Amino acid sequence: MIRFECDYAEGAHPRVLEFLTKTNFEQTPGYSVDPYCEKARGIIKKLCQSDRAEVHFLVGGTQANTIVIESILRPHQGVVSAETGHISVHETGAIEATGHKVLTLPSEDGKITAAQVREVYESHWNDPNAEHTVQPGMVYISNPTENGTLYTKKELTELSEACRSLGLPLFLDGARMGYGLAAEGNDLALADIARLCDVFYIGGTKVGALFGEAVVITDPSLQKDFRYMIKQHGGLLAKGRLLGIQFMALLEDGLYFEISEHADRMAMKIKAAFEEKGYAFLYESATNQQFPIIPDDKLEVLKKKYAYSFWKRVDDQRSAVRFCTSWATREEDVELLLEDIRSL
Amino acid sequence: MIRFECDYAEGAHPRVLEFLTKTNFEQTPGYSVDPYCEKARGIIKKLCQSDRAEVHFLVGGTQANTIVIESILRPHQGVVSAETGHISVHETGAIEATGHKVLTLPSEDGKITAAQVREVYESHWNDPNAEHTVQPGMVYISNPTENGTLYTKKELTELSEACRSLGLPLFLDGARMGYGLAAEGNDLALADIARLCDVFYIGGTKVGALFGEAVVITDPSLQKDFRYMIKQHGGLLAKGRLLGIQFMALLEDGLYFEISEHADRMAMKIKAAFEEKGYAFLYESATNQQFPIIPDDKLEVLKKKYAYSFWKRVDDQRSAVRFCTSWATREEDVELLLEDIRSL
Amino acid sequence: MIRFECDYAEGAHPRVLEFLTKTNFEQTPGYSVDPYCEKARGIIKKLCQSDRAEVHFLVGGTQANTIVIESILRPHQGVVSAETGHISVHETGAIEATGHKVLTLPSEDGKITAAQVREVYESHWNDPNAEHTVQPGMVYISNPTENGTLYTKKELTELSEACRSLGLPLFLDGARMGYGLAAEGNDLALADIARLCDVFYIGGTKVGALFGEAVVITDPSLQKDFRYMIKQHGGLLAKGRLLGIQFMALLEDGLYFEISEHADRMAMKIKAAFEEKGYAFLYESATNQQFPIIPDDKLEVLKKKYAYSFWKRVDDQRSAVRFCTSWATREEDVELLLEDIRSL
Amino acid sequence: MIRFECDYAEGAHPRVLEFLTKTNFEQTPGYSVDPYCEKARGIIKKLCQSDRAEVHFLVGGTQANTIVIESILRPHQGVVSAETGHISVHETGAIEATGHKVLTLPSEDGKITAAQVREVYESHWNDPNAEHTVQPGMVYISNPTENGTLYTKKELTELSEACRSLGLPLFLDGARMGYGLAAEGNDLALADIARLCDVFYIGGTKVGALFGEAVVITDPSLQKDFRYMIKQHGGLLAKGRLLGIQFMALLEDGLYFEISEHADRMAMKIKAAFEEKGYAFLYESATNQQFPIIPDDKLEVLKKKYAYSFWKRVDDQRSAVRFCTSWATREEDVELLLEDIRSL
Repeated sequence: MIRFECDYAEGAHPRVLEFLTKTNFEQTPGYSVDPYCEKARGIIKKLCQSDRAEVHFLVGGTQANTIVIESILRPHQGVVSAETGHISVHETGAIEATGHKVLTLPSEDGKITAAQVREVYESHWNDPNAEHTVQPGMVYISNPTENGTLYTKKELTELSEACRSLGLPLFLDGARMGYGLAAEGNDLALADIARLCDVFYIGGTKVGALFGEAVVITDPSLQKDFRYMIKQHGGLLAKGRLLGIQFMALLEDGLYFEISEHADRMAMKIKAAFEEKGYAFLYESATNQQFPIIPDDKLEVLKKKYAYSFWKRVDDQRSAVRFCTSWATREEDVELLLEDIRSL
Repeated sequence: MIRFECDYAEGAHPRVLEFLTKTNFEQTPGYSVDPYCEKARGIIKKLCQSDRAEVHFLVGGTQANTIVIESILRPHQGVVSAETGHISVHETGAIEATGHKVLTLPSEDGKITAAQVREVYESHWNDPNAEHTVQPGMVYISNPTENGTLYTKKELTELSEACRSLGLPLFLDGARMGYGLAAEGNDLALADIARLCDVFYIGGTKVGALFGEAVVITDPSLQKDFRYMIKQHGGLLAKGRLLGIQFMALLEDGLYFEISEHADRMAMKIKAAFEEKGYAFLYESATNQQFPIIPDDKLEVLKKKYAYSFWKRVDDQRSAVRFCTSWATREEDVELLLEDIRSL
Repeated sequence: MIRFECDYAEGAHPRVLEFLTKTNFEQTPGYSVDPYCEKARGIIKKLCQSDRAEVHFLVGGTQANTIVIESILRPHQGVVSAETGHISVHETGAIEATGHKVLTLPSEDGKITAAQVREVYESHWNDPNAEHTVQPGMVYISNPTENGTLYTKKELTELSEACRSLGLPLFLDGARMGYGLAAEGNDLALADIARLCDVFYIGGTKVGALFGEAVVITDPSLQKDFRYMIKQHGGLLAKGRLLGIQFMALLEDGLYFEISEHADRMAMKIKAAFEEKGYAFLYESATNQQFPIIPDDKLEVLKKKYAYSFWKRVDDQRSAVRFCTSWATREEDVELLLEDIRSL
Repeated sequence: MIRFECDYAEGAHPRVLEFLTKTNFEQTPGYSVDPYCEKARGIIKKLCQSDRAEVHFLVGGTQANTIVIESILRPHQGVVSAETGHISVHETGAIEATGHKVLTLPSEDGKITAAQVREVYESHWNDPNAEHTVQPGMVYISNPTENGTLYTKKELTELSEACRSLGLPLFLDGARMGYGLAAEGNDLALADIARLCDVFYIGGTKVGALFGEAVVITDPSLQKDFRYMIKQHGGLLAKGRLLGIQFMALLEDGLYFEISEHADRMAMKIKAAFEEKGYAFLYESATNQQFPIIPDDKLEVLKKKYAYSFWKRVDDQRSAVRFCTSWATREEDVELLLEDIRSL
């Protein structure tokens, strides 16, 4: 079985493991105040071209989303998100568990627009019974989205301007950040994201690390006491240096971007093969997730050798599925898949 | 600087890293349903002599405590704990953040007794205004405790009997489980703990793993939907196998117990040296944490070469401090310390 | 200004005030364990034909909804509701504030069906990643709904059967219970509701009381420790007898049903007048809330003398509005309105 | 049975009922934006000599405490309180249910000092692991306290200065405010309290109203969106005017202060009688709650005619009990009691 069903099927990039092994017996203080974390923070701030940013390392994405959001909102506020947003559907109500409603916006492709944000804001504040409803308190997006789609610099700029004019902090979930930055056609650099968002994270779990997400808080007014929030949510790793070490390994020489580019390239090959075959796609994605719509009898053939994710039934003969590549995807596995696609 | 200030200053036992490296490129499903987690679960159930136990792997202790406790209590219930319990003082209110009060009992040495549990229970239920107060819903202990002390089999049996007769699930925090099991004079086996407690965990973070705690739920009535709780609290590691692999490495050949025994032996050497010097101890500990009471001028000397934790001021000339050993403590470092103690 | 904008514009039915005044200087124990509350409980249980029911008195509806729902759900569960449900839109996220997601179902008229409940249940349990999503834990409906519509006995029976077969407690919000029971065409008696639902409440605030909702828990497995939950949420009124006294006044001689019938009759007059005028209605309601769709220029006329609620814009010339009657609506005010409608 | 066990055994002062009856059929908007609430707000702001204060009306004390505290704290913060504070022991964990720890300070008489507040603050901020503990975020006191004791102007001024210099909002629970203001020896006026505290409430439930607490937020930085918090916690009474009307009745002509003075005077008579008898008191109280220490055989005699509250066992022959007077206490009942005390 060759696995394309997700981007976390393997361990870590060898350089990560080497670095962990090399530093294994050094003694450092716990809880991410060690020299490795410090160094990784410096690298990230430089990549983000932001001196005033604060960088925190967390183990996983649900944790990152929950802690950031709870840290920002007051109790009566909710977070605006696409209805397909990870926080809305795939975190077992983690946001609600901290007391906050997710205020969902309709979305075809996983993205939301500045106009939608303005509308939900105005609709709240124009309601004479606004106090009886949840107040929009911030905006959550992901890039790439759950559907593999990307914001353009123009779109993100508009969204950012809308949020800032309305006083709503903008939070970008970058669990697959690398695959977005490396994608063909992407026009957003990390420094753009740092400039346009108030807080975001650079995902490690799905891009070469064993685990780890680097939360970057660029808005100083959101930085206060963030470590308390991490600890309260069980997110302060005792051996915090493991996170610093991994992000150093990935970021100090550009490895993160190289391996992301590899994953995207592998995805484009798969995409092209399905296109050649005449299959449509559920979403138009330039990143490591591809959502071809495939006749069910053909899927029967593919599933003998390949693991993929079922996404949704499109009609009574076809289903949309997800093929995922990653930093670890082997070109020879992709070639095998391409052959099998062609001969479907 | 030689660090004795905690038991998580290094990475992991080399065998753990080797195993992680060896399996690195295998593809497995995520979220701890892979073969390594399955195998580790089997080993743990066997060690616990419990077929009906359910085993879950979490990243850290605060997470384990929070998820277990929230999973058990109804909203109006609280968890009974020694006032020195980790959940009461060192987790930034993580338990309260899930809506529950920690009902504290006084404790000199970190332990609580069956009699205390009976008393808090009866005092609640005899109160005509019981409904205006938090209802005791479960009992939390740790073994070893925060103070390095251990429950005897007799004590734990009595506590277990009290809890069961009162309908209060008994939860044992085993973040330092190994150092307790390996301690001289300890008469509790893992299977005793599994039999006497309703849920507990075997700590990996402080005993040879990079990170990881194995939660064992022996009471079937507490097992329902536990994975939802893990996910909701951001505790479901995407690459869950990293936990299974580590616990396999530590437990399949008894490595966990060997390295724990080493740490305790190192601690006993340090203890003996302080005793010879005529220093008293804040707590009587047979485990890897030692709490000598040391004149401040002597501490000035020690702190030039050694990191330890300040615990509390005892009088105006002496302070209690903590020296911690671990699986990683090097015998030559201990010998250096012993010499320096002797020449104080 | 004559107010038809809600059903809580006045104080209480005079008999309620008389009874409060008459008993004013009696001394009773606090917190709803007094003889008046006991007597009111007896009356309600008799009306519900349920010996095993437990009755609790709360001050308001948001409180009742929140306490009932939090009392039933485990942390990872959510409550299924119509998307228009009061708990979903008009309680400032009170349910989320207790940690639970509201799982919404589409609804045209405010009602949900047995089939919808089965579908949301099956869709959850058939999801291979169910643990990453909120588990349906109970079902919330209101009768009359927010839109004034009513469940038929057949519909409620089917819903009840679905819920019971799936293990989902069924909770009915009866803030306007009286107006539903008294409506023309209604075929549900209070005893039917008690038999088909697991918990529900009889609204007093909108039906003749100063304030107060009587929560009836018919399923014994949901009764445990409910008073703790009330206290924790600030719902245990010190002078609890005020609630018992009001419900006695309303229920011991059928006053509740009489005044409800009056309100519905007044509403039917208004409805007929709008119908005669050829206006359509947003929802088909036989209860005290009517939602006519009215040309904006005609609304301009009406609003000079009458307060009503704006509901939604239907097209660029017409809006749906709500006219509400209540136990206190004066027939002469309605006659005035009818005249003005006719001469629009 | 003559009841002295609490101060909420009767209904309301007749003037309150009269006012409710007189206004009963007026139509007003809901949710406390009616003219009566507006007028009551004006009266209160005048009494408090504070133009910038914001006044909100809530039904009960637990609700007031919970909403005020949750509104102020960030998730990782706790509220500092005497260990005997109502929020710490008698609200079924309502504060913890909103996610916050109550940080308790030892107290003999129910009061806390500026020095204690400074100490808990410094002890937190001097802790190198402060982030692992709950951060003090505000201070809660009550006046009169649970024990009937009173802060002097000097004490409250010091506390206020400490809180302001440390950035900790000071919140005063005035559930029995009237009985404090009217007490012999009290040197605090309402305007002092308004000036020295950042938020407080004037209790109605125990001082002449059917129910109701008037929350006064004097610090503008704590006022934002408070009504959302009220609604979310089910505290926004539909017929909000009932609260405005009651506070108008109590405050517009000084009735509140007269009836408070009556209750205190009755309490002083009871106090004197016990003193003459040579009985000691658990706390020294000049307000409506008295805590005599009485031989158990004498209690046996008293309890045949009088209801009082058991407080605590003092030794094997004596118990401390509470006798409570109120606005409704009849002088003839007190005279009966005095006689019976004398003849013990």
